[in-house]
Amino acid sequence: MSGGCPYFEKKLFKSKLHLNEEEADDSQKGINKASKGGIIYGDYLQLDKVVTAQVLQSELKGNKIHDEHLFIVTHQVIELIFKMVMLHQVRDERNMLKVNTRIHRIVMIFRLLVDQFSVLETMTALDFYDFREYLSPASGFQSLQFRLLENKIGVPDNLRVPYNRRHYRDNFKGHESEMLLSSEKEPCLLKLVEKWLERTPGLEGNGFNFWKKLEANIFEGLCLEKKKIAKMPDSEEKEEMMEELTKQKELFTSLFDIKRHEHLLSKGERRISYKALQGALMIYFYREEPRFQVPFQLLSNLMDIDTLMTKWRYNHVCMVHRMIGSKAGTGGSSGYHYLRSTVSDRYKVFVDLFNLATFLIPRHWVPKLDPNEHTFLFTAEYCDSSYCSSEDSD
Amino acid sequence: MSGGCPYFEKKLFKSKLHLNEEEADDSQKGINKASKGGIIYGDYLQLDKVVTAQVLQSELKGNKIHDEHLFIVTHQVIELIFKMVMLHQVRDERNMLKVNTRIHRIVMIFRLLVDQFSVLETMTALDFYDFREYLSPASGFQSLQFRLLENKIGVPDNLRVPYNRRHYRDNFKGHESEMLLSSEKEPCLLKLVEKWLERTPGLEGNGFNFWKKLEANIFEGLCLEKKKIAKMPDSEEKEEMMEELTKQKELFTSLFDIKRHEHLLSKGERRISYKALQGALMIYFYREEPRFQVPFQLLSNLMDIDTLMTKWRYNHVCMVHRMIGSKAGTGGSSGYHYLRSTVSDRYKVFVDLFNLATFLIPRHWVPKLDPNEHTFLFTAEYCDSSYCSSEDSD
Amino acid sequence: MSGGCPYFEKKLFKSKLHLNEEEADDSQKGINKASKGGIIYGDYLQLDKVVTAQVLQSELKGNKIHDEHLFIVTHQVIELIFKMVMLHQVRDERNMLKVNTRIHRIVMIFRLLVDQFSVLETMTALDFYDFREYLSPASGFQSLQFRLLENKIGVPDNLRVPYNRRHYRDNFKGHESEMLLSSEKEPCLLKLVEKWLERTPGLEGNGFNFWKKLEANIFEGLCLEKKKIAKMPDSEEKEEMMEELTKQKELFTSLFDIKRHEHLLSKGERRISYKALQGALMIYFYREEPRFQVPFQLLSNLMDIDTLMTKWRYNHVCMVHRMIGSKAGTGGSSGYHYLRSTVSDRYKVFVDLFNLATFLIPRHWVPKLDPNEHTFLFTAEYCDSSYCSSEDSD
Amino acid sequence: MSGGCPYFEKKLFKSKLHLNEEEADDSQKGINKASKGGIIYGDYLQLDKVVTAQVLQSELKGNKIHDEHLFIVTHQVIELIFKMVMLHQVRDERNMLKVNTRIHRIVMIFRLLVDQFSVLETMTALDFYDFREYLSPASGFQSLQFRLLENKIGVPDNLRVPYNRRHYRDNFKGHESEMLLSSEKEPCLLKLVEKWLERTPGLEGNGFNFWKKLEANIFEGLCLEKKKIAKMPDSEEKEEMMEELTKQKELFTSLFDIKRHEHLLSKGERRISYKALQGALMIYFYREEPRFQVPFQLLSNLMDIDTLMTKWRYNHVCMVHRMIGSKAGTGGSSGYHYLRSTVSDRYKVFVDLFNLATFLIPRHWVPKLDPNEHTFLFTAEYCDSSYCSSEDSD
Repeated sequence: MSGGCPYFEKKLFKSKLHLNEEEADDSQKGINKASKGGIIYGDYLQLDKVVTAQVLQSELKGNKIHDEHLFIVTHQVIELIFKMVMLHQVRDERNMLKVNTRIHRIVMIFRLLVDQFSVLETMTALDFYDFREYLSPASGFQSLQFRLLENKIGVPDNLRVPYNRRHYRDNFKGHESEMLLSSEKEPCLLKLVEKWLERTPGLEGNGFNFWKKLEANIFEGLCLEKKKIAKMPDSEEKEEMMEELTKQKELFTSLFDIKRHEHLLSKGERRISYKALQGALMIYFYREEPRFQVPFQLLSNLMDIDTLMTKWRYNHVCMVHRMIGSKAGTGGSSGYHYLRSTVSDRYKVFVDLFNLATFLIPRHWVPKLDPNEHTFLFTAEYCDSSYCSSEDSD
Repeated sequence: MSGGCPYFEKKLFKSKLHLNEEEADDSQKGINKASKGGIIYGDYLQLDKVVTAQVLQSELKGNKIHDEHLFIVTHQVIELIFKMVMLHQVRDERNMLKVNTRIHRIVMIFRLLVDQFSVLETMTALDFYDFREYLSPASGFQSLQFRLLENKIGVPDNLRVPYNRRHYRDNFKGHESEMLLSSEKEPCLLKLVEKWLERTPGLEGNGFNFWKKLEANIFEGLCLEKKKIAKMPDSEEKEEMMEELTKQKELFTSLFDIKRHEHLLSKGERRISYKALQGALMIYFYREEPRFQVPFQLLSNLMDIDTLMTKWRYNHVCMVHRMIGSKAGTGGSSGYHYLRSTVSDRYKVFVDLFNLATFLIPRHWVPKLDPNEHTFLFTAEYCDSSYCSSEDSD
Repeated sequence: MSGGCPYFEKKLFKSKLHLNEEEADDSQKGINKASKGGIIYGDYLQLDKVVTAQVLQSELKGNKIHDEHLFIVTHQVIELIFKMVMLHQVRDERNMLKVNTRIHRIVMIFRLLVDQFSVLETMTALDFYDFREYLSPASGFQSLQFRLLENKIGVPDNLRVPYNRRHYRDNFKGHESEMLLSSEKEPCLLKLVEKWLERTPGLEGNGFNFWKKLEANIFEGLCLEKKKIAKMPDSEEKEEMMEELTKQKELFTSLFDIKRHEHLLSKGERRISYKALQGALMIYFYREEPRFQVPFQLLSNLMDIDTLMTKWRYNHVCMVHRMIGSKAGTGGSSGYHYLRSTVSDRYKVFVDLFNLATFLIPRHWVPKLDPNEHTFLFTAEYCDSSYCSSEDSD
Repeated sequence: MSGGCPYFEKKLFKSKLHLNEEEADDSQKGINKASKGGIIYGDYLQLDKVVTAQVLQSELKGNKIHDEHLFIVTHQVIELIFKMVMLHQVRDERNMLKVNTRIHRIVMIFRLLVDQFSVLETMTALDFYDFREYLSPASGFQSLQFRLLENKIGVPDNLRVPYNRRHYRDNFKGHESEMLLSSEKEPCLLKLVEKWLERTPGLEGNGFNFWKKLEANIFEGLCLEKKKIAKMPDSEEKEEMMEELTKQKELFTSLFDIKRHEHLLSKGERRISYKALQGALMIYFYREEPRFQVPFQLLSNLMDIDTLMTKWRYNHVCMVHRMIGSKAGTGGSSGYHYLRSTVSDRYKVFVDLFNLATFLIPRHWVPKLDPNEHTFLFTAEYCDSSYCSSEDSD
């Protein structure tokens, strides 16, 4: 007890605010490890670098504006959050469970990101105006991490909105531009997902042959439906139902038309191969089967990422609109109008997964799975990876 | 148009995903300022320092654990958020409007802070266990910024839970310990608020004399109430109402008893002077008067800060419980039990503002204000500060 | 103590989990009022109506789908939240403080609303598909409260996206259609704000004459700027600065051109009168003056409402996209495409307040206020309303 | 096109705010199903009941207070959210995947719940005071759904804080009291989880015998550790390491001591059987194995529920403190002090799952699984349930 602080004994039990004896004991039974040397908190986190890395341009230019400090720190936080995302390599497909856990974590990080503007929103347009001129030509567009992130996820080069009529990459300096180019060449998350989907067990033409069975079931189902309607007495309702059925038939005919798929692909309205699309739909239909549960979670998480990315873009646009109205951005872009144009399906990577909902069918049209076939999508892959391997390191 | 990217002309109007002509024009009408030199985004934010300031202890010790990277970055984000708060000096009382705006911003920053653990919560106890030993003896307790923050707001030295039976300051090294000591000696936010409340116009004994008028009104009101009840026919209800009235009388008698106030003050159950308490109650009662509107917002914001600080502590405790069960902390504390003991009214600074709700009374008991007296709490102060002064700089 | 439960005495102090004596006393010192009759919780809230008002169409049609229950309850919650907003009449302009408090509360309610889809998002497209057919032709478009809300805020009839090429009102039945029509005819929030802005003290031509002073200052400022640039030696930079200046001059010339304002008004790109625009800009520039503080908060809150409404629309679109892909809505609309078209500046009511940021100027160009003139925007109005009046009732 | 509204053709393409031709087409290509009869939105949701079920006590008593309306609606929303939770039966253990999905949804519902007080927090203590007397003796304590919810999750009767020294159930009327009693007798979620954990494959004494293997590995590990330390030259560090090792040994000895478990169980510090605890630890250690992945997610979700319940309680306490200070509750309880006492580990149901983190060990001490044994925890159960069975209905 020697070395303890005197008020502990004297005051801690005095009033309602103080601990009762047992609580006091429980809360105090540790020992002070730090007093014996070793790394401490501030050094561990390199706070000397992080917490002091703020140089105000307004101060350099002789007119220190207090709010620029907040502006810098909030953007540094955003960049550190981008870094959190970038930390997570999901390229290793061997262990689907780990991939899924990581993708889910990325979802949680994006959730955090989406709310980051709430503090900057306490800065009024006039507060910002006071130091805005000093920032030029720095601009959020130049965030290397964000552009890399887009590439790693799979925003396609040819669907990007140009930046002042120039290719986005031309706005980055040599080294950065090369990093961007090389990130475009690496397989992006979309491509990895596509390849994995193509391998969905059950797609094999000489096996379960899901796609063929599905096509048969759907058109048989529609045919039965048609017969049922045909038997109804003539009425406006009957006519409408028949019309609706025709539309359905057209819709599904288009689904099984590979040429149409290739056409949509060329226009950027679809992004994954025909086989991958089949795999995704298979996972949708059999999501309650044990072997498709984790894959289905993965597809859901991928849609979350897409949604959260666009929500972040949208929140950003809203803040910018408030800050600078329809002025040009500090980097020279058209500001609000440029940003507004990036909140569109063009920047959605997993748009095919959303659109699959267009092709849902009644449960009894879904081909029955062979109950004996229980290859787990992830077991198979899982088994040939050595447990506790080092694939984890980045 | 030369220098523009070729796909802009060719592809941008091709499919639904592409911009219509007007949108395309609007989004592209800027110019590329950055190409002509000047500071760019990454340099402005010193990202070379911030985004690279992560050294994994597990890696240094030859066993790199991927999740330690996330652990470090999330804590750096938390420290940058602490810095956001620390940036906001609110010591200048001359301009109440600015003070209020800043306090509100601090509220928004704390709201952000409260959600920070959601990402770390994706790390399981087992993930953490893999690198936890490497962190020792670093510990969140050692966060200098957080301790300074507590002091600046006004967590009193003598109500702090000791850390392993030692004074909290003894756990910091020389320089840091001195910073903490000196922060304890500076007037904290609570003290500044106290002094400002003491000056509430209307408290003057030779003026409006709010406190005396209030006391008179309350006891007159209770007396009338008593007479009304006395006239009722005997019944259980009457008895109860009389009992309730007696309690009320005791409650208000205690409110006007300065000795009781001093006693509670000495036990830490009240924290502000008797006069400040009167000022706060006055602002409560007249919050709809123009002159009390902004002061009332300020009191609300101060309660928000207190609430959010304890919510943050509570979220922290929940995460730690999940991560380490009832193990000792990396710094050697009792871990969960120590942290649990800090989530209490002991660490609430503006507890008096909450407790004021105990003393609310019917509107017609509130002394009428002199309608001619319209001194604004903040105008008065505002006028003697020079407009656009430099009090803003930190 | 008789009547107390036996375990209280026996068990409550037994283990760490139990209360200490003082806590136990504090927590138990109340009395059970409800045992003596009077209204209780469930009756007060009419839970018999609210919690039982769920009829599943899937059940009526002989195929009960569990998730429809959740679907109904979440939508009822959303409607109750709409009701929370509708409760708040803000038409009484006499007391600006109350108006501001209410508008702020509406902001908080919208914040709640924005997050409501998170639960429905746990329902997959396939879960929804199971009961979706039973809902038809019910559709969220038919939410009367939401349409009334849009009208009360000020979404203009002529900027609304038609619903399947028909006027939005034609999709509602007689009584509801009339309510909508009559809500269009009542002065909406936008109109009330417009009138209030037109009365901003300082706009009077025979008084401070803000607009004329501002015009003079701006063009004088631009002129001085031009002279300064003209003196610079010829260079690319000089040329650019001169070009930028010309743009600025054009921008501000357009601001002071009432005809241009009328033109933009007719196209729906501006929504408030020229005088109101002047008042809003005045509040922007003098927001730190005591008299403009609360008005400025009000303008900020109005922008928040606009932003949150569009965020809600956007979140809705995202959920719908996931649920039904590009299928038609249950009410027969084009679904995703219809909803997507409502997330645009067309549905933003206070778009002028955002665009004001385009016209910010250096602080020293802002006309100096007469320091003797201290009429409070809200005091003036406040004084002629009787204190504690009944304008509050709805 | 006849029947279309005239402004569609004329105005829709006029300004930037309007749709381009393709968008206009896409957004308008639906048909108006509702015009042909059938259920519409308001009837489907029974909004006539829900949105009108608000009777203000203040109005009944002749003094209508506007804010009571908001107070009622927010509480109705909270009750509907409780209903959302109650909808989810998780008693069917046969299909672990469904159970997990539902538990996850409950987590999302609780997340929503936790934020519900933000709107009520815009009501000041004084606003509430204006109608508070009219509510008595109604009180949140009387929420039947919430008490049922606690029972269904597994808050044990004998750990509940009494309410004014009376058993909690005694505060409910006959029918409600019976519902509560019967809910206590039904197997709660905790019990279902306990039974499921007891069946964890690998616990069988005549099979993998996890518990025995684990005990052997741990004590062998500790023994090796001890030898390693013993070889070190004498030093303070050596002494400390030895001390730490002794603590570890004690800790693990206690883990394998069934009598100690029974003792803790009797005090309420543990809540699940010894066998279930073993199963839970097994799931912790093998969470990366395919067969333990979903079970591990389930345990995480259960901890989330516990954490969110206590966060909700805590947020409630914070709001109440602000509203009524330390006054008695409307139902007669001690108010703040009563509520404060319910935010404790006493009301945490899955406290054992948190505490498991105390017993983590290095990965190489974990017994190796037989690679041939791949019975899925959920497959086994899954297979004997008929697909698409009606176990879903509530």
